Amino acid sequence: MPDHRFRPEALTLLGTRVFVALGAPEDIARAVAGSLVDANLTGHDSHGVLRIPQYAERIREGKVRPAARPRLVEGRQAIGTVSGEWGFGQLAGRLALDEAVRRAREFGVGAVGVVRCNHLGRMGEYMERAADQGCVGFVWVGGLGRRAAVPHGGSRPTLGTNPIAVGFPVEGEHPVVVDFATTAVAAGKIMVARAAHRPLPPGCIVDREGRPTTSVEDYYAGGALLPAGAHKGFGLSVAAELLGQALTGADAIDDAPGKEPVHNHSGALFIALDPGVMRPAEETRRQARRIVDRIREVPPAAGFDRVRTPGQPEVESRAARAAAGIELPDDAWRAIKECALGVGLRDEDLPAAR
Amino acid sequence: MPDHRFRPEALTLLGTRVFVALGAPEDIARAVAGSLVDANLTGHDSHGVLRIPQYAERIREGKVRPAARPRLVEGRQAIGTVSGEWGFGQLAGRLALDEAVRRAREFGVGAVGVVRCNHLGRMGEYMERAADQGCVGFVWVGGLGRRAAVPHGGSRPTLGTNPIAVGFPVEGEHPVVVDFATTAVAAGKIMVARAAHRPLPPGCIVDREGRPTTSVEDYYAGGALLPAGAHKGFGLSVAAELLGQALTGADAIDDAPGKEPVHNHSGALFIALDPGVMRPAEETRRQARRIVDRIREVPPAAGFDRVRTPGQPEVESRAARAAAGIELPDDAWRAIKECALGVGLRDEDLPAAR
Repeated sequence: MPDHRFRPEALTLLGTRVFVALGAPEDIARAVAGSLVDANLTGHDSHGVLRIPQYAERIREGKVRPAARPRLVEGRQAIGTVSGEWGFGQLAGRLALDEAVRRAREFGVGAVGVVRCNHLGRMGEYMERAADQGCVGFVWVGGLGRRAAVPHGGSRPTLGTNPIAVGFPVEGEHPVVVDFATTAVAAGKIMVARAAHRPLPPGCIVDREGRPTTSVEDYYAGGALLPAGAHKGFGLSVAAELLGQALTGADAIDDAPGKEPVHNHSGALFIALDPGVMRPAEETRRQARRIVDRIREVPPAAGFDRVRTPGQPEVESRAARAAAGIELPDDAWRAIKECALGVGLRDEDLPAAR
Repeated sequence: MPDHRFRPEALTLLGTRVFVALGAPEDIARAVAGSLVDANLTGHDSHGVLRIPQYAERIREGKVRPAARPRLVEGRQAIGTVSGEWGFGQLAGRLALDEAVRRAREFGVGAVGVVRCNHLGRMGEYMERAADQGCVGFVWVGGLGRRAAVPHGGSRPTLGTNPIAVGFPVEGEHPVVVDFATTAVAAGKIMVARAAHRPLPPGCIVDREGRPTTSVEDYYAGGALLPAGAHKGFGLSVAAELLGQALTGADAIDDAPGKEPVHNHSGALFIALDPGVMRPAEETRRQARRIVDRIREVPPAAGFDRVRTPGQPEVESRAARAAAGIELPDDAWRAIKECALGVGLRDEDLPAAR
């Protein structure tokens, strides 16, 4: 099997060129490609460069407008709403998070809804962005077009993977970042398993008849995802559906471009909170540090080398992969290469494996 | 086995009398007893009247001040902090939720921390209270004194049960209420299992060596709780620890009364959000109704009679138990009776079983 291991900058450049070739301005193309590569760096390949061909297809189908820039459509006091204008979700998410942070600085807490946003990418990135600006962050995503998950006790899918995330700044190190799909696995993890020709662990998916299975192909043949932790993940998923869609008004949006739009009624709620109002921010961060230190001091259980706090695996992966390079499965690399050549890039534009 | 089934009002009256006998003003005693009985009505016996002897013991130990009333200690724009003044947590929680709602009405979103609060009771009750006032609600509880849960990958407990909850108003019916411990089971559920002499399902607890077990007695002999859904429940628990304790400053509180105070460094964060800013509130509630209706239409999986949305089991239980009465296990009723007689109530003050 050939070695498909690349320097992160080389993949970012490739992604940028693909999106530019498809009509994105340079700055937008670079921002989106950078987010995808950072997802690979943090270990979340499901949200990484394997999305390049998917995004390219959506641009060609007219569903994603590569040159569109998001805008704040309305705001009142500590609340705002951002329209992604059917451009790349990464831009809409950043604007929404930044607007929530701006409101948190003025009022102590701010909440911003996002609509017309397409795929938002890795939620943890926004939570890091909130913490980098000194704020606590929350995000809930709902109304995802593809009904992928069964409700607890149900046999047919009616919910998306509805991810949620929380970020919290910590003194002297990376923030705590909790970021997960409310299903037992994210849809993107199934794409990764399929690309690697691996089965899934039990308790993740059901087949088209609603019966438990571990076969990825059963999932693609009309199967569905199970909620994480039975009624608990289901409850969070319903909350995300309500907060991301009903609260923001994403369900009432009817101007999605392209045929059979995928994310036409999806939306997200970003909340930012100033950690320096109830007590000085440095005391908040200091106590956060004591909490993560205390948790990491716990002796590991059988099968673990040590206890990691949420966000720590991503930071460790980022350091390791920045040094060693990002490795892509054969199928994923072939799809990216074909996509790049298909939009007019030449063989010499493709990065050399390292 | 004798029948210990009581009318809800009779148990509320009994609880009120016990707390009054221990020094609570009538209105406070009734509010707290009412919350406990409502927890039984909703099916959450772990947060119900079996807490009466526990609360009574904490009052006698000086840890709970039965006559204390909570106060808003500081507020700035959309943020506030409530001190429970070491009184009953139910009063502190209500004030904090109401203050968050007041801020949501003014700014669109409001966040209020709570410290010095003792046991807050059932979180779902606050979420119903937010929805009754037309708002979306969130709560995160952290810093609970008793280290009960192991971190994901760890062998020793260092986190509390750290519950979280979300409430969302729905047109024409009860709100969606998501309310759970971030551990696989709540500590209170173990109290219920012990009272009923039942084992727990696998995946809930470990023994004192960190090994999986289903025996309640292993838990009480130095065991611990597992997080719900492995790293997902663990992530939520860490977030709750940070939000409930580090953000509110609960860790810095050092004036807890009584010896070996149990909840001295615990705190909670309540957030309320006005669902009528991004779109008209009636449209938000109408779409929420469509979402819950859509979920309930899903055909049930094997082993389920139908799909229920979060908050629905509680509403159905409340109707059933209001009619049929609240049944208590023998141990629980005996402890309550002894407690009542111990504070000076007479046999004729005890409710007759129905």
